[in-house]
Amino acid sequence: MPENIAKLCIHSITTKPWSLDVALDKYAAAGVGGISIWQDAAQAVGQERARDLVEASPVEVISYVRGGFFPNHSAEARLKALDDNKKMIDEAATLGAPLLVLVCGAEPKQSLQESRKQIQAGIEALIPYAAERGVKLGIEPLHPMYADTRSAINTLGQANEVAEAISHEQVGIAVDVYHLWWDDQLEQEIKRCGEQGNLYAFHVCDWKVPTSDMLLDRGLMGEGCIDVPLIRSWVEAAGFDGFNEVEIFSNHYWAMDQDDFLAQIIEAYKKHS
Amino acid sequence: MPENIAKLCIHSITTKPWSLDVALDKYAAAGVGGISIWQDAAQAVGQERARDLVEASPVEVISYVRGGFFPNHSAEARLKALDDNKKMIDEAATLGAPLLVLVCGAEPKQSLQESRKQIQAGIEALIPYAAERGVKLGIEPLHPMYADTRSAINTLGQANEVAEAISHEQVGIAVDVYHLWWDDQLEQEIKRCGEQGNLYAFHVCDWKVPTSDMLLDRGLMGEGCIDVPLIRSWVEAAGFDGFNEVEIFSNHYWAMDQDDFLAQIIEAYKKHS
Repeated sequence: MPENIAKLCIHSITTKPWSLDVALDKYAAAGVGGISIWQDAAQAVGQERARDLVEASPVEVISYVRGGFFPNHSAEARLKALDDNKKMIDEAATLGAPLLVLVCGAEPKQSLQESRKQIQAGIEALIPYAAERGVKLGIEPLHPMYADTRSAINTLGQANEVAEAISHEQVGIAVDVYHLWWDDQLEQEIKRCGEQGNLYAFHVCDWKVPTSDMLLDRGLMGEGCIDVPLIRSWVEAAGFDGFNEVEIFSNHYWAMDQDDFLAQIIEAYKKHS
Repeated sequence: MPENIAKLCIHSITTKPWSLDVALDKYAAAGVGGISIWQDAAQAVGQERARDLVEASPVEVISYVRGGFFPNHSAEARLKALDDNKKMIDEAATLGAPLLVLVCGAEPKQSLQESRKQIQAGIEALIPYAAERGVKLGIEPLHPMYADTRSAINTLGQANEVAEAISHEQVGIAVDVYHLWWDDQLEQEIKRCGEQGNLYAFHVCDWKVPTSDMLLDRGLMGEGCIDVPLIRSWVEAAGFDGFNEVEIFSNHYWAMDQDDFLAQIIEAYKKHS
């Protein structure tokens, strides 16, 4: 269990009711070391103001969230997706975020295999642009329940295959316990991910029992059925020493007092991560 | 595409508003060849009456649904689960159902690996009882979004491993496109399942885009993102020549006129299966 929270990072969407300036102040006051900024939070204050806020804050920017959504039946739409991603890379660079997390997308009108090819092509097309701006790209494998539209990459094994096929230091992987906890190949794929130098980020939360919503009912660590400390031990054994990023979308938690929620996050991180 | 619907089977829960007698009459009148009976449908009319109904019907009973739920933190509860399953085997035998489908269960307080061990032990304990009554047991791997409580067997690969470890003709596998469509190992695991003689049942429906409910928003074949004909071709290439079972839980479809829904099922089966 962590003795301190210097390596704790919180995604801005986790405390969505707070604007970016409030979130930065609250996280800093609590001793939270990092923040991953979602585009909506930066846009709400404006990108320039967002940059000033993070420059003035002791809280470190860990990643910018979220690019991706590469596959599409239409070639025109795929080109449009590249433009959207370049804009997000610019925004990440402005904020000093070293990593842009990719929710890779899926096109329900075609096979997942075809979507994965388009994902790889899209990421490869972005590498020069991202490299020039010093922003790495993190493939985030998503739970199979999101395979219809959100991601055709649904296991860490698939993410490893794509990252290894691309084989460029600009591209790595974000491991999220929520998406991957059920996979009996997870330990060995985390090991492989680390050995290949592709383990760029680690996201934590919990799977509530029962879960009432496919998207917006994530739990705090310790609240559900995921053995977060075990997965964290695998990630650390694979050489990862970065931040533990708490990424929770929850109508339940967004409805409560966010100061109380922040205290709960820190408590859960100390006890169950 | 099927030229006729003699190999079409419908799960009683698909047309839940119909009692068993009505469902049997409607299916028979439409030329539907088979029915898989859920316990609630049989219990609603009583097991003896259910037996009389199916004996008088031209519709063939394909399976009884659903046993399982073996894992539990408590040894006492695991023994209780065996008793429940024996009761369901008796009921299946009474109805002349050759197969009891198993939703194997998962215990969120322990690892999925431990739950899988308890599943295997539970199934093995049932074999003599099931064999005496002429009822086979079908392991149904469930989608990873049900790994918290409904099943620790979430891929066909895992189901194959358990079935092969048990290695008894009394035990096979039910392949359901809804649970398995996303898996990049599916084609080869279906082949393996057939080669090992374990392919006992094939369930179809579709994954709606978007899906509004984790349990009760399944779609008709052709309505979503699953390539049902492709998966069916793999199943048939693996030697399966049994029924195509339509298993849909849907608040949407249960709310509509069930005669119209039955016509839609048959249309979807002819066009998109």
